[in-house]
Amino acid sequence: MKTETERPACDYQMAIRVYWEDTDAGGVVFYANYLKFFERVRTDWLRDLGLSQETLRKLGKGMFVVSDLQMRYLRSARLDDQIVVTTLLVEQGRVSLVLKQQAWRQDELLAEGQVRIGWVCPAEPGANTATGAFKPGRIPEDILKLLPVRQS
Amino acid sequence: MKTETERPACDYQMAIRVYWEDTDAGGVVFYANYLKFFERVRTDWLRDLGLSQETLRKLGKGMFVVSDLQMRYLRSARLDDQIVVTTLLVEQGRVSLVLKQQAWRQDELLAEGQVRIGWVCPAEPGANTATGAFKPGRIPEDILKLLPVRQS
Amino acid sequence: MKTETERPACDYQMAIRVYWEDTDAGGVVFYANYLKFFERVRTDWLRDLGLSQETLRKLGKGMFVVSDLQMRYLRSARLDDQIVVTTLLVEQGRVSLVLKQQAWRQDELLAEGQVRIGWVCPAEPGANTATGAFKPGRIPEDILKLLPVRQS
Amino acid sequence: MKTETERPACDYQMAIRVYWEDTDAGGVVFYANYLKFFERVRTDWLRDLGLSQETLRKLGKGMFVVSDLQMRYLRSARLDDQIVVTTLLVEQGRVSLVLKQQAWRQDELLAEGQVRIGWVCPAEPGANTATGAFKPGRIPEDILKLLPVRQS
Repeated sequence: MKTETERPACDYQMAIRVYWEDTDAGGVVFYANYLKFFERVRTDWLRDLGLSQETLRKLGKGMFVVSDLQMRYLRSARLDDQIVVTTLLVEQGRVSLVLKQQAWRQDELLAEGQVRIGWVCPAEPGANTATGAFKPGRIPEDILKLLPVRQS
Repeated sequence: MKTETERPACDYQMAIRVYWEDTDAGGVVFYANYLKFFERVRTDWLRDLGLSQETLRKLGKGMFVVSDLQMRYLRSARLDDQIVVTTLLVEQGRVSLVLKQQAWRQDELLAEGQVRIGWVCPAEPGANTATGAFKPGRIPEDILKLLPVRQS
Repeated sequence: MKTETERPACDYQMAIRVYWEDTDAGGVVFYANYLKFFERVRTDWLRDLGLSQETLRKLGKGMFVVSDLQMRYLRSARLDDQIVVTTLLVEQGRVSLVLKQQAWRQDELLAEGQVRIGWVCPAEPGANTATGAFKPGRIPEDILKLLPVRQS
Repeated sequence: MKTETERPACDYQMAIRVYWEDTDAGGVVFYANYLKFFERVRTDWLRDLGLSQETLRKLGKGMFVVSDLQMRYLRSARLDDQIVVTTLLVEQGRVSLVLKQQAWRQDELLAEGQVRIGWVCPAEPGANTATGAFKPGRIPEDILKLLPVRQS
């Protein structure tokens, strides 16, 4: 159960306070709630790139959804903790992106994950997005060109 | 801080187990989560009357939303507790219903509330319910006639 | 269903962004989640007064818990909305405080509530707070003197 | 994105109804909430083996916590869906267990995950579990002997 002591570079980061709602009777942040924290940071990272949910709907008539993820829990965050959650784009494909995300309390790594988000759009154009089905598709060019370029 | 010792009659009740997700670092069920429990019971009560969410959308092109509520918290539910949550229709109007709801652990009243749910339908017919606006309206007759009749 | 158009004075306010986790299939913030937002603001207001959860435990060996509340839901917050949640101390007793809290989107009042928080401390001194019982008690003087004084 | 069409054998399963609280503005179950469903089933599986949270505390003075997990999301659950969530013990070590868990809607696999839960006990005996630290340790024999035996 190692914890890295230096916070690596990332594309975006966000301070998150731990409130009562985040904790459980073990006195620590409930394991599912790190996925909420990670989602907040992904959303704000996209918004920061000019890709708010509304823009995504307009540009691509679709949205990103999580298709798979891995999580490692190393140390527990507790009530009142101020943590920093980071996100880094590590893989950019035509239909999905892979992000590495971490939660830190100062120099302690609390949890980290790798999250694949895939692009989906309504299976039938103009369908009611609250009730209609979605299907995977290519990430629209107008979205791809706003993502950070990585040397590989 | 009195707790009634006899469970009054109700229209519908449901056993709910308390899991880690429901608790907070105080070791008890987080206060907002009783509203989740109450919503589950209202939804199952409506479904039991033949009014699933899908039927509501078909019959009335709308749904019920909470417009106001009062809550009293008397005793705390804890991890692993098996509680019983009840609902009773106490007021039936043309645009809203009022439900009295309680959470019990055996003969201990833990929390109780009064919840007004109002009928809303899309502000523009055929609008995308995920993004469009809703406006209050009269509860459709096909729904009203399925509700329990009270003598008054 | 009136919405006040001027934001009244308050003791503390906080900007809150609406994320996916806060919304439901109706496309709006789930009604129980306003109680999460209100709790965040109460906690930060107390922290701002010098009363972090840790300080509360040290000063008073106890904590505040919600004993009753009223909520009114006027308009819906949606994904990506930036809202402002306020809190105002409207009643200060020896065993409880009453706070008026509101959620605003610019000049639209979305929801408002009145929340009574009562002081509780372990029923037996030194008990494990995760498993032991709590009992209501007088708010410690060291806490009372940090609260804003109101003319009445 | 394949979906298996036959539900494999498992150690324990549980029907779970999707309520408003579980969904998000995309009209589907929010991705973090499958972790809540999986936790409910693990807890009920342990309880069914005679290992309620209270028994775990008594037998071993500790509890299981999630140390790592992988998730795959294949299809979306929606409001009112009745799903079945399963759990299967696939690895039993001295300090942790690995469970394979799946969520099904009839013959459609919606999501699946592999979850490692490790045993932790208070770092200092008799510490307040709400505020004290935990450390990993060997799963107590009294707990191990209640787990299903696998041929290997």
